[in-house]
Amino acid sequence: MNLILLSGGSGKRLWPLSNDVRSKQFIPIFEQTDGSRESMAQRVYRQIRKADADASVVIAAPKTQVSALRNQLGESIAVSVEPCRRDTFPAIALACAYLRDVKGVCEKEPTVICPVDSFVDDSYFETLKTLSRLAEEGTANLVLMGIQPAYPSEKYGYILPENAEPVSRVRTFREKPDRETAKSYIAQGALWNGGVFACRLGYVLGKVQEEISFSDYYDLFSKYETLPKISFDYAVVEKEPAVQVVRYAGQWKDLGTWNTLTEAMERPDIGNTVMDKSCSNTHIMNDLDIPVLAIGLSDVVVAASPQGILVSNKEQSSYMKPLVDSLEQPVMFAEKSWGSYRVLDAQPESLTVKVTLRQGHRMNYHSHQRRDEVWVVVSGTGRTVVDGMEQEIHAGDVIAIQAGCRHTVMAETDLVLMEVQLGRGIRADDKQKYPLEL
Amino acid sequence: MNLILLSGGSGKRLWPLSNDVRSKQFIPIFEQTDGSRESMAQRVYRQIRKADADASVVIAAPKTQVSALRNQLGESIAVSVEPCRRDTFPAIALACAYLRDVKGVCEKEPTVICPVDSFVDDSYFETLKTLSRLAEEGTANLVLMGIQPAYPSEKYGYILPENAEPVSRVRTFREKPDRETAKSYIAQGALWNGGVFACRLGYVLGKVQEEISFSDYYDLFSKYETLPKISFDYAVVEKEPAVQVVRYAGQWKDLGTWNTLTEAMERPDIGNTVMDKSCSNTHIMNDLDIPVLAIGLSDVVVAASPQGILVSNKEQSSYMKPLVDSLEQPVMFAEKSWGSYRVLDAQPESLTVKVTLRQGHRMNYHSHQRRDEVWVVVSGTGRTVVDGMEQEIHAGDVIAIQAGCRHTVMAETDLVLMEVQLGRGIRADDKQKYPLEL
Repeated sequence: MNLILLSGGSGKRLWPLSNDVRSKQFIPIFEQTDGSRESMAQRVYRQIRKADADASVVIAAPKTQVSALRNQLGESIAVSVEPCRRDTFPAIALACAYLRDVKGVCEKEPTVICPVDSFVDDSYFETLKTLSRLAEEGTANLVLMGIQPAYPSEKYGYILPENAEPVSRVRTFREKPDRETAKSYIAQGALWNGGVFACRLGYVLGKVQEEISFSDYYDLFSKYETLPKISFDYAVVEKEPAVQVVRYAGQWKDLGTWNTLTEAMERPDIGNTVMDKSCSNTHIMNDLDIPVLAIGLSDVVVAASPQGILVSNKEQSSYMKPLVDSLEQPVMFAEKSWGSYRVLDAQPESLTVKVTLRQGHRMNYHSHQRRDEVWVVVSGTGRTVVDGMEQEIHAGDVIAIQAGCRHTVMAETDLVLMEVQLGRGIRADDKQKYPLEL
Repeated sequence: MNLILLSGGSGKRLWPLSNDVRSKQFIPIFEQTDGSRESMAQRVYRQIRKADADASVVIAAPKTQVSALRNQLGESIAVSVEPCRRDTFPAIALACAYLRDVKGVCEKEPTVICPVDSFVDDSYFETLKTLSRLAEEGTANLVLMGIQPAYPSEKYGYILPENAEPVSRVRTFREKPDRETAKSYIAQGALWNGGVFACRLGYVLGKVQEEISFSDYYDLFSKYETLPKISFDYAVVEKEPAVQVVRYAGQWKDLGTWNTLTEAMERPDIGNTVMDKSCSNTHIMNDLDIPVLAIGLSDVVVAASPQGILVSNKEQSSYMKPLVDSLEQPVMFAEKSWGSYRVLDAQPESLTVKVTLRQGHRMNYHSHQRRDEVWVVVSGTGRTVVDGMEQEIHAGDVIAIQAGCRHTVMAETDLVLMEVQLGRGIRADDKQKYPLEL
C-alpha cells in the first residue's frame, strides 16, 4: 500500500500542549504499558506498520514539523516538505510527485491519502486496504471512506451514497450543515467525510498538470508558491463524477479539542499530579516539573506546559481558540532535529533556555548578530566549536560566545546546557547558518 | 500603645503561594491603587501606623521569617526572634522580655498582643486601644477581645461574658465546639476568641518567672528551648480568674484558606491571567510568568507559583493540607534579606536558580563543600568576592566557583544572576559562612 499522511494544523485548540511549532499530533498523550508516551502521529504510524509492514509511506508536512516527525517517527521517515503554507490540494499534489519521483512509485499504482492524527482502531487500516484495492481496480477515479456518523455533527461534510451497500457510488456531497440539517442527512443514509480517499497516483498528478505545468517533484517544489490555496475536496473530489464510497463503522474520533482528547486518554492524569478523589470527570496533563494539585473539580481539564496553564470546563474548551489567539506568546518550548529546548526565564534583555541535545546530534553551525550567549554544561559530554576552535566539554564547563561568533555543539552523550542569551532585541530569526568542516 | 504581633504558621492551606519558608501572611495578595501588592502583614502594619503612629511594635516570629519581615516592613522593624519552634506562651514571653529589656518599656505599662494576619478594618485598632487602656486601668489582669460571631464556627474557641455590656467580666471559656454546640453558645451570648488580648507587661513576665527563672531577654533567649510547648490560652488565659472582655463587632476575617482569602481579594485575578467571561465566582492568583487561561469555571480557585499549581473547588480547598503534605517538596522560591531566589530547573546533579539581589544588599560570604557553582550575570552591576579576590561584574559576566571556594556578591544596582549549582547531593544546608573583611 502507498500512503500519504497529511500532517497539518497549528492546534490552538490544544494549547498549551501545542504551540506555534508543536501541532496537536505531536503531543505525547497516550500512555503505553511501559510508561512511555505516544503521540497521535506515533500511534497512527505504528498502526500502519502493523497493518502493512511494507507500506510505502510519505508524510506531507510544513517544514516546521520536520524535526518533530524525524524525532518521533525515526530519521528515515519520508517527508514531502511544503516550502510554504498552501492548502490540501497543493500538499497532496507535492506528496504524489514525491512518491513518483523520489520513491519510484508507478503512476498506475493506487495511493491512499489520510490525516496523520485520526484516533482509530485497527479495522480502519483494513478499510484503507479496501480503498487501495478499489482504486487499483479503477471502477471509479476516486474512492472515499464514508464514516458512519455517531451523532448529527456540524463539524463535518457529508457524503450521500447511492445505496446502502458496503461499497457504493456517491450521489452527492454536502457542506458542513447545521444540526437539524445534519439529522436529515443522516436519515437519508449520509456518511461523514473524514478526508480519507484513494486513487491512482497518476490521477492526482493529471489534475495538477491541469493547473500548472511541471516536470517532476523538484520542479513542482520550486513552483509550489504559485499553486492555488485550495482544498483537495473543492479542487478535485466535488468535481469528480466517478466517485465510490466505502463504509467504515469502526472507531473514528477527531481528537482536536480537549473535550474529545481527554476521552481517549487511558488515565485521568499525566505528569506530576495529585488528583484528590473528590474530583470527577476531570483530566490533568502536566508537562511542567512542578506538581498540579486538583481538588473537588467536575468536568474540568487542566493542561500545563512551559507555554502556559489551561483550566477549563471540558465542553467549553472547544471555544478556546480566540482566547489563545489573544495571548500573542513567543514559543516557549520546541522539538528540534537535535533534541529540544525550553525557555526558563524571559527578561527584557535576556532569555534563559534549557537546551537538551540527544546523543550523536548537533546544532547547526551558526552565529547571532544581536546577542551574546553563555552555555553552562549541566550534564553529559560533547564538543563545541567556537569560531573554528574545537573543545571537549563536560558538566560544569562554561562557553562564552560573543555576538557574531560562529558556534555549535555536538552531543557525545545526551547533553543538557543552560543557555543564557544576552542583548537588546533577542529574536528567534537572528540566526546565520554556516557550513561546518572539521 | 505597645503591641506584640504574633507571626507564626506555615500556611500549607495557602499552598502553592505559601511554602515551608513563606507563611501566608507574606503573600502579596491585596492590590493597591498604584498597582503594587500588599501582604497581610504589610496591611496590618500599615493600619497600626495609621491608628497610632507612635506605637511601639515588636513582632514575635521564627527566624525563618526575619528576612521576609525586614523586606516587607522595613529594616528597622523590631523582631523578637524565636530561636526554635515552641508555642504562643514562650513566644509571647520572649517578646515581652524584648519590650522591657531591648525597647525599655516599663513593666507597669500595658501591651496588646494580637496576630499579624487578621483581615480587619480600622475600628479593630480603635478597639485595641480600648484593650490597652483597660489593661492600664487594671480592673482585671487580662483584657480580651471578644469577636461578635458571624456564624456558628467550629474553628474558634468561645468566650462567655457575664453580661451583654460592651465591656464585661468573662464567665467562662469554651473549647472549639461542634456546630450545634456553637449555636447554643451563640444563643447564650458567647463571643469568638481571636487570640487578641492586653495586659500589663509585668503580668506576663511574672507568669514566665513561675515557669523558669531568668534575668533578662538575653537570658530568656538562651533558655528558650527549655520553655514548655504550651499555648498562652492554656498556660495563662484559662487559669486567670480576673479576665475582662471587650466586644468587637467590626470586620474580622481569618484569611487562612483559599476560600476565605479570595473573598477579600479586590480583583478576581492577579498576575498573568486571562479569565473568560464564562467563569463565575472564580479567582486566579498567578505568580508564574506564563499565562493562566480559565474558561467556564464556577467556584474554583487557581493558584500558581514556582512551588506548584493548585486548582480547587473553593470550599474544598479548606481540606487541602494532607494533600500538600503528601507532596514532600523542596522549597522552590524564597525571600531573603538580600532579595529573592527561584528554582528554575532541578536535575539529579544540578539546580538552576534565578537569584535577584536588591540594590545595596549582599549575600553572606560563604562556601559549599559538595557543589560547584556558576553565576551568569543577567542584568545590573555589582561586585563579587571569590576567595578574597574582588571583581566588578556586569551583564554577561561569568563567575565560576569551585566547591570549597568562599564567595559573595554585592549589588550596586538591582542585580539578577542565573546560578547553576553542580554536584552530587546538592543540599540547602551545605553552606559554611565566613566573616568578610574588605
